[in-house]
Amino acid sequence: MPAIAPGSVGVVEPRRHRFEVPLALSSGAQLADYELVYETYGELNASRTNAVLVCHALNASHHVAGVTAGEPANEGWWDNMVGPGKPLDTRRFFVVGVNNLGSCFGSTGPMSVNPATGLRYGPDFPVVTVEDWVHAQARLADVLGIDRFAAVMGGSLGGMQALAWTTLYPARVAHCIAIASTPKLSAQNIAFNEVARRAIITDPEFHGGRFYDHGVVPRRGLQVARMIGHITYLSDDVMAERFGRMRRGRAEGEGYDFGFDVEFEIESYLRYQGEKFSTYFDANTYLLITRALDYFDPAAAFGGDLAKALSGATAEFFVASFTTDWRFSPARSREIVQALLANRRAVTYAEIDAPHGHDAFLLDDPQYHALLRSYFERVAREIR
Amino acid sequence: MPAIAPGSVGVVEPRRHRFEVPLALSSGAQLADYELVYETYGELNASRTNAVLVCHALNASHHVAGVTAGEPANEGWWDNMVGPGKPLDTRRFFVVGVNNLGSCFGSTGPMSVNPATGLRYGPDFPVVTVEDWVHAQARLADVLGIDRFAAVMGGSLGGMQALAWTTLYPARVAHCIAIASTPKLSAQNIAFNEVARRAIITDPEFHGGRFYDHGVVPRRGLQVARMIGHITYLSDDVMAERFGRMRRGRAEGEGYDFGFDVEFEIESYLRYQGEKFSTYFDANTYLLITRALDYFDPAAAFGGDLAKALSGATAEFFVASFTTDWRFSPARSREIVQALLANRRAVTYAEIDAPHGHDAFLLDDPQYHALLRSYFERVAREIR
Repeated sequence: MPAIAPGSVGVVEPRRHRFEVPLALSSGAQLADYELVYETYGELNASRTNAVLVCHALNASHHVAGVTAGEPANEGWWDNMVGPGKPLDTRRFFVVGVNNLGSCFGSTGPMSVNPATGLRYGPDFPVVTVEDWVHAQARLADVLGIDRFAAVMGGSLGGMQALAWTTLYPARVAHCIAIASTPKLSAQNIAFNEVARRAIITDPEFHGGRFYDHGVVPRRGLQVARMIGHITYLSDDVMAERFGRMRRGRAEGEGYDFGFDVEFEIESYLRYQGEKFSTYFDANTYLLITRALDYFDPAAAFGGDLAKALSGATAEFFVASFTTDWRFSPARSREIVQALLANRRAVTYAEIDAPHGHDAFLLDDPQYHALLRSYFERVAREIR
Repeated sequence: MPAIAPGSVGVVEPRRHRFEVPLALSSGAQLADYELVYETYGELNASRTNAVLVCHALNASHHVAGVTAGEPANEGWWDNMVGPGKPLDTRRFFVVGVNNLGSCFGSTGPMSVNPATGLRYGPDFPVVTVEDWVHAQARLADVLGIDRFAAVMGGSLGGMQALAWTTLYPARVAHCIAIASTPKLSAQNIAFNEVARRAIITDPEFHGGRFYDHGVVPRRGLQVARMIGHITYLSDDVMAERFGRMRRGRAEGEGYDFGFDVEFEIESYLRYQGEKFSTYFDANTYLLITRALDYFDPAAAFGGDLAKALSGATAEFFVASFTTDWRFSPARSREIVQALLANRRAVTYAEIDAPHGHDAFLLDDPQYHALLRSYFERVAREIR
């Protein structure tokens, strides 16, 4: 039994729901049936008005808060945000975390068995979009008896889902909380995704996505992909502060080894992150999720006019960005804010001075958490 | 015979010199003998005072200006800078371009035959540093009868060599011109190099650097390495302007293919750059040159004090940076300038407002070229 830290929702058990009504996807394909894995924390109130959906980003899952029962205990990816007494307070809110379609953490995805063939989907799993995920999440809300979320919330790719909720299901979301997000990827963002995908796809052990059948994993490609990702998650400043030119096993300024093994701490850190990632993340899922990122562009159907794209939204918005985030910089969040203001929507915007870059949305920066705490207090007051 | 554009130095022939006196390297290894390939443009004056050395960066060579005799004619990498009537005017200056040791463009490197074994060096070619390159360049200057360069000039990694000249051979360089350079790599810079190296080293066709013996090339690793490099050479802005979310073979906003082939122009561009690079660049050279970048840190031997490191320099300096360069940002050039000012050295510093990012140093931005033209006019006046 893992030790439970104060403020934790405690030991959590994922649940699973099988959907037997086919889901039509943006691509034109459909999933005949599929499962979603989810967790919930707190209690749904009698009027079913206190539910908050937390959407996950690239490397996360339904396991938002608390610890899993197994050994080693695995803490939820946003445990500092969600729990009793935390900014998203589970004494007041019923919080839902759901693993998206195409993931490798339990919901139906490339590692699942394709009922049509009896084999794993692998590369045959259809390309899914942010909008597809939202439709699947809405069906889960139906199952849970949630007509309307008090808030839909996410960081990065999770923020894109929160944003998509406000236009796909405007009547079903009271507040949209989009943190460190963007209304669409830039060329540079797509470029980093593409390099990561090429590293995976060109790994001979990828086998066109059918590596499961060969008993191998394209770990070299996954390692490189993760290393690239990590560089973009951290600010130049925080990398300088945390690693600088610190040497591995030597004092700074000491002689070099004159080779290509680890010389600098930053190399060791990146290799470690890449190797760890390659042991648990599915290569096909990596491709799918980066493509969902690339494709997200709600303004595209409106001639590039984001204000028009968001004109049907009725939610109130909380948008936050971090000054040192160069992946989805404050300017990208401001595009969302401006489009909302053009529609005279209520929007709270915070540009938070934090050194950590894109990763800041996962950290418990006091100013950031105080802002969210106060925003959720307001959401809670509206429920009562 | 290729057509010669006005202002070109015309058709050029590389020359080659064999050095039989061993060169001691920073690593403690030594090269028993080696060759350097070089080109020269213009005429050395009678007093031998008008020579300018142009140092190359990662993906370049001795072929700085003019066109090669073969088909297809290959234009020098800095042809817009060097030629009759150009900023570095070959009617006044005798310009020397030299290919560095470890390169794959003609000077002794991993592709050369190791006289000790009769086989290609491959991974046995010693790791070389910026300082090693400068020592080799100084020996070439001896051969050419140049006691003192009117200027040593370079961009990016080339700027590091120019900087190293001023402390290793202070009496031999009158002016140092360091553009888009840095006194040392940051953790983020090293991180990008390391990911590129991992992509190469983990490519099964790298064979520990002995791929020549297997008749293969680690082209997948080279492609990924080059793609990563390219992203860092371009500014976010110029990528947005040149590529944005433009589609390959479709109008922007048109439906997606829902797959992992090229959807966006930026993907096509990066793949093309990667594929082209992998056909001509040597993987071992890529490792060596990125390591030389990582290692360069003249302040390290002085407790991190760059002013102390540069205290022996007697040259005058021209330092320039580009506002949108996020690889070696203006702040990095300012570190050099501040260290020089602390030593009361004469330094001209220009922070050039250019949209192109790191690549700007290779482009013929009018303001940038006007500044260099004017600086070289001053250098020329001192010679007369």
